[in-house]
Amino acid sequence: MSPDRLSSTFAALADPTRRAILARLASGETSVTELAEPFEMSLPAVTKHLKVLERAGLITRSREAQWRPCRLDAKPLKRAADWMEQYRRFWERNLDNLEEYLRKLQHQEKKHGRKK
Amino acid sequence: MSPDRLSSTFAALADPTRRAILARLASGETSVTELAEPFEMSLPAVTKHLKVLERAGLITRSREAQWRPCRLDAKPLKRAADWMEQYRRFWERNLDNLEEYLRKLQHQEKKHGRKK
Repeated sequence: MSPDRLSSTFAALADPTRRAILARLASGETSVTELAEPFEMSLPAVTKHLKVLERAGLITRSREAQWRPCRLDAKPLKRAADWMEQYRRFWERNLDNLEEYLRKLQHQEKKHGRKK
Repeated sequence: MSPDRLSSTFAALADPTRRAILARLASGETSVTELAEPFEMSLPAVTKHLKVLERAGLITRSREAQWRPCRLDAKPLKRAADWMEQYRRFWERNLDNLEEYLRKLQHQEKKHGRKK
């Protein structure tokens, strides 16, 4: 069974080097050699990461220019973010609870202060 | 090297069964047996998925009740969504380009319509 698109996206993102490559490509397209520079990694190792990103549709490589620049493609990220959106109410509820707790704490401190 | 938190989160999400478990837990805490029911999977297989989710901090298991209910913890999802947020401008730019393209197309169709 071929993995579904969302699984491929998340699997590709589950690596700090691959996320760093995406961050680099966010500032513009670049060649593989340039991409490899900041990582203390062999060119084949970087190429392997690029292949994972390419299969997940997160980067595209131009077939026109001879230096075949890599470019970020954010469409899979949008789908992943859309999936995450359904859980927003949970983390926002956590923040609401924290706010309520802090409000109560403040209120108690005020009462305590008055008694002194 | 232990994987960083963001990598653990994405690796845990890179599986349709684990995402389905999270979706189920979004509607309330439940026991492992109940969780396993909709999946045509052995209990040990489901337990394995739960362990991955637990290690990634996406679920917690109560130590109080004897049936040890599982509960969703959305904090890692918030961090993952925050990471994704930095790429929003890329997918929104894509949508802007599409809108502009459709506007041009409409404009051309109007011109064409007038000529007839």
